Amino acid sequence: MSTTQTLAHPTDLLLDAMKRAGSPVCVGLDPVLERLPQPLQPQEESNATAAYAIAAFSCAVLHAVRGVVGAIKVQSACYERYGAEGAAALDCVFREARELGFCVIFDAKRADIGVSTEHYAAASRALDAQFTTCSPYLGADGIEPFLAQQRGAFALVRTSNPSGDLLQSLALADGRTVAEAVADLVAQLGAKHVGQSGFSSLGAVVGATKRADAVQLRKRMPHAMFLVPGYGAQGGTADDVRACFREDGRGAIVNASRSVLYPKVAAGQSFEDAIRDAACVFRDEIAAVVRPMEQSCA
Amino acid sequence: MSTTQTLAHPTDLLLDAMKRAGSPVCVGLDPVLERLPQPLQPQEESNATAAYAIAAFSCAVLHAVRGVVGAIKVQSACYERYGAEGAAALDCVFREARELGFCVIFDAKRADIGVSTEHYAAASRALDAQFTTCSPYLGADGIEPFLAQQRGAFALVRTSNPSGDLLQSLALADGRTVAEAVADLVAQLGAKHVGQSGFSSLGAVVGATKRADAVQLRKRMPHAMFLVPGYGAQGGTADDVRACFREDGRGAIVNASRSVLYPKVAAGQSFEDAIRDAACVFRDEIAAVVRPMEQSCA
Repeated sequence: MSTTQTLAHPTDLLLDAMKRAGSPVCVGLDPVLERLPQPLQPQEESNATAAYAIAAFSCAVLHAVRGVVGAIKVQSACYERYGAEGAAALDCVFREARELGFCVIFDAKRADIGVSTEHYAAASRALDAQFTTCSPYLGADGIEPFLAQQRGAFALVRTSNPSGDLLQSLALADGRTVAEAVADLVAQLGAKHVGQSGFSSLGAVVGATKRADAVQLRKRMPHAMFLVPGYGAQGGTADDVRACFREDGRGAIVNASRSVLYPKVAAGQSFEDAIRDAACVFRDEIAAVVRPMEQSCA
Repeated sequence: MSTTQTLAHPTDLLLDAMKRAGSPVCVGLDPVLERLPQPLQPQEESNATAAYAIAAFSCAVLHAVRGVVGAIKVQSACYERYGAEGAAALDCVFREARELGFCVIFDAKRADIGVSTEHYAAASRALDAQFTTCSPYLGADGIEPFLAQQRGAFALVRTSNPSGDLLQSLALADGRTVAEAVADLVAQLGAKHVGQSGFSSLGAVVGATKRADAVQLRKRMPHAMFLVPGYGAQGGTADDVRACFREDGRGAIVNASRSVLYPKVAAGQSFEDAIRDAACVFRDEIAAVVRPMEQSCA
């Protein structure tokens, strides 16, 4: 069972999960059929066989990284592409993740007008996702419904993808960038939702590939947790990641997906053990980034 | 069967559907359990009974408005909230809509980094959606995958919701608003995808509630179809709608959801007939907006 009942504020729950793991990290479940280990590759092509295979792989990953990381980020798109069977697989993965005690972030990047965002928030609650990622383009209407009923959200602020600059880096007349204006909106909306830890249930997605921006954004959102994608496969380094944390070494959770899901498997090693080893390496790399920061502020 | 094979360009297909209907309109399927007609209200509460009810209602709407409108917009959130059963209902509704010859817009407002947007585009193709709505916040990476394999997209530019202003109305240093910068991006990305009609397969969502903005945006995106929500229930008027069309009366498709789905049902009338009547009223109102424009340019 999850500990949702005892730790009602979602960010307190997330911080607790990171503390137990000893490192502020999560593993991203972005399962892609072509990259699954040979034993799980389906023999025939259908939505059902594909969905079974990615569900089986996802659950194997959950068991492999249990005790290594405390949080999981689930990429909705990888399951949605298989229709109703994919949605059933997604539900299965969420149930298993909750059963194993993970804090789960639903990476769905949803948002709509208020009444429709309410439906998306209901979908997240039905999955029992502690957090949902959401897009800021529709303003508060696309964000606030996700914060109801003790749930949290991470709003996109500065994304790790190459074309994120096209909109997010534009300069406003008041001197801010678009991403900084969104950061100010996130700080403002999140101020009403700060938990005992001092962090809000509304966090921000800030890619590990945009270090200079992360420094500025960290100052603008002192009470926001940063969800940091882009480490590893997308080119983000430990130095890039450091800028996403506050000076006390708190305030961010770093995600790795492909580098953990698809590691090199040594001869005689199971893919589960290779994934666990890759998760341990990732966990230790990020712990090494924040430890000196924590110690200098202790 | 749909006419996808003979009219390969999605916007040519959409224009053809509007022409056959005699009005540039679509009906939005945003089914909400509490508002379903009494005979369809489920006796007990579960995802399965809810999903069956909204599937039954959605298909009843499709049959009621057949021959009245040529296009349907399906709101993903209303189905997603019921999990795998909701996804099955969504698939059922898409199959019925294609069977009846509608051009279908999947209103999902998706976007992610490139590799994940590819998965979302695959989900849209699996449903055989001609168009998907998408968010511009991640730039081209969140838009272009939807344009592959003869599919189209509508990117959010100016939304109809109250808090859309928070980001979309901000002034840039170069004098544009954020929405205008997104419009320029849409015009640029869409230029590679213009069909025989002169319109691109990349269109723009421009709410009927933002008339002054629509005038500016129309100039910036001469080859973009506008998908226009907000008419009726959200307060948009016929005058607001007019600004979304080019001077020749082309270039937009106006959506109505709640005003068509939940009309007043007269004594002795079936809800299907009331929906059909409401769709006819809506179709005729919008036809009356564009007819004088078409005639003055003929």
